[in-house]
Amino acid sequence: MIRKPYLLFLGDAPDQLAAKVAQGIADWRPENVVGQLRLDGCKADAGVPDLGLNDAWERGARTLVVGVANRGGVIPESWLDVLKQALEIGFDLANGQHNLLRDQGVLRETAQRNDRALHDVRVPTVAYPIANGKKRTGKRCLAIGTDCSIGKMYTGLAMDREMRTRRKKSTFRPTGQTGILITGSGVPLDAVVADFMAGAIECLTPDNDSDHWDHIEGQGSLFHVSYSGVTMALIHGGQPDAIILAHEPTRTHMRGLPHYGLPTLEELRDVALPVARVANPDVRICGVSVNTSALDDDEAVRSCEEIEDRMGLPTVDPFRHGAGRLVDALEAI
Amino acid sequence: MIRKPYLLFLGDAPDQLAAKVAQGIADWRPENVVGQLRLDGCKADAGVPDLGLNDAWERGARTLVVGVANRGGVIPESWLDVLKQALEIGFDLANGQHNLLRDQGVLRETAQRNDRALHDVRVPTVAYPIANGKKRTGKRCLAIGTDCSIGKMYTGLAMDREMRTRRKKSTFRPTGQTGILITGSGVPLDAVVADFMAGAIECLTPDNDSDHWDHIEGQGSLFHVSYSGVTMALIHGGQPDAIILAHEPTRTHMRGLPHYGLPTLEELRDVALPVARVANPDVRICGVSVNTSALDDDEAVRSCEEIEDRMGLPTVDPFRHGAGRLVDALEAI
Repeated sequence: MIRKPYLLFLGDAPDQLAAKVAQGIADWRPENVVGQLRLDGCKADAGVPDLGLNDAWERGARTLVVGVANRGGVIPESWLDVLKQALEIGFDLANGQHNLLRDQGVLRETAQRNDRALHDVRVPTVAYPIANGKKRTGKRCLAIGTDCSIGKMYTGLAMDREMRTRRKKSTFRPTGQTGILITGSGVPLDAVVADFMAGAIECLTPDNDSDHWDHIEGQGSLFHVSYSGVTMALIHGGQPDAIILAHEPTRTHMRGLPHYGLPTLEELRDVALPVARVANPDVRICGVSVNTSALDDDEAVRSCEEIEDRMGLPTVDPFRHGAGRLVDALEAI
Repeated sequence: MIRKPYLLFLGDAPDQLAAKVAQGIADWRPENVVGQLRLDGCKADAGVPDLGLNDAWERGARTLVVGVANRGGVIPESWLDVLKQALEIGFDLANGQHNLLRDQGVLRETAQRNDRALHDVRVPTVAYPIANGKKRTGKRCLAIGTDCSIGKMYTGLAMDREMRTRRKKSTFRPTGQTGILITGSGVPLDAVVADFMAGAIECLTPDNDSDHWDHIEGQGSLFHVSYSGVTMALIHGGQPDAIILAHEPTRTHMRGLPHYGLPTLEELRDVALPVARVANPDVRICGVSVNTSALDDDEAVRSCEEIEDRMGLPTVDPFRHGAGRLVDALEAI
């Protein structure tokens, strides 16, 4: 568990996209964020106060979160100075990139000397068990996509926020590094050893109140040959009661696989449902989440209507239209 | 790649089952085996000559393979003495158990001093890439089971042997520790990190002659919630042209999951085929391999006949009846 609240480190982000992790945290857990720290030349803005390390510390920040992607796979010298100084002041550090903080000798040494934690959230720190498949109490919802990077995390976060607004019991359960940094804990599923993937998800979504919903962050796609095993483990470890199908209507091929077309939502439904029933015979597909970011307002509405007619399922873009209708569908179970 | 030929170490195996890895090697690759080394009290026999370390070395053995399961998860002192002596003589060591040779200080030190290799085949030693899903030349066959531990490795080995007997181009591709010890190389798939599972299988089954068949060792089951992600990665990384369904007709529940019944072969077919078509639209289910070890001869024949009638697929127990009809089905593609 990462200590909160955070100071977000945006470094010298060349554009807003490079700081999307910081943006995600500020958007979804503003209560966890004291401010942002930007270096000279930073072109991104997470929309929170600019603070130096000492000011942020005095306002209560306890972890400096690297919320920016570095370029070329190295942590620049200019960053290291700030990160080292933060450790000296008393901050822990958290990082979701492939480059690990712990691989930087200066940070490892400084953290050790000051008894501070380096959270490299891409690396599992827990010895997960093999899944036992036992039915757990409480309810679970999982978004399953026609492709990777299609809005599954966003869908889960939006449904969780909607349920909290309605004062319903709800927890977002992260399975990737951005989600883990947003909430402060989770399972970095793509880095877990094969035999323990489903068991890790069982640990992430334990017994709970019968009216509590876990919104499990989806990963990969059953139709993405590089990552489908991860998706499968998520379905069988998560034993969802409700599935949301996630889609992006303008995408022409599977992400990173130009020679693979996307499945239709019908094909996804027909493959996902029998697979999910293995772990939970009562599972239902409750709705469709459409990522309409490439469409204008009219096109977005028309796309959702067309899919809703075809699939007979409540269909929204939760970013554009809110997650209310998807949550209504869960509550109707 | 493990140096051949082998001397099989059976230790003080309390029964034949404890030495099933040694037995598998002696059964499937007798040409790789010089003999066996048994300690006092050993109750197992792999059916090969008993040899001491020095005799085996003189007959050409270059790796001492731990072909026995130890009890209680520790490597006994009596074994360590022999293993150390083997390293001093010049043997490499190979081991498929969870207990790693490299975790034994005395073995690590002795191996280093003598420049010998310790092969702990449960641990991946290669940095596998993320799968790219590109179509590869050559043909691939994969056994997919209604459950784990149902005869998938045996099916692949038997089909490979039958094809070699027919002087066809064929390679068995191991994905588990026993298979790796039998052939001397492979991918320990259950120990690979999630993101790289499918990529590891792509590496294992590279481009080949158009009339060459890889027989990929199956793992887990799409219906076994603990390991289904591994099976999925195997299907999408292996992009099989031919699938053999594997079944054990007397099993009452999924292995290790007493609260899960087995799927029918029809259910397995209906889930596996759409999933496999994602990676290879031309994939065909070519036959059924039935593990009839719990049945008498008449029952075994009747069970296969009944399944063949129901499924409309050539159905045999390759151990009992030979793999000829399954290979005929591949050659008919």
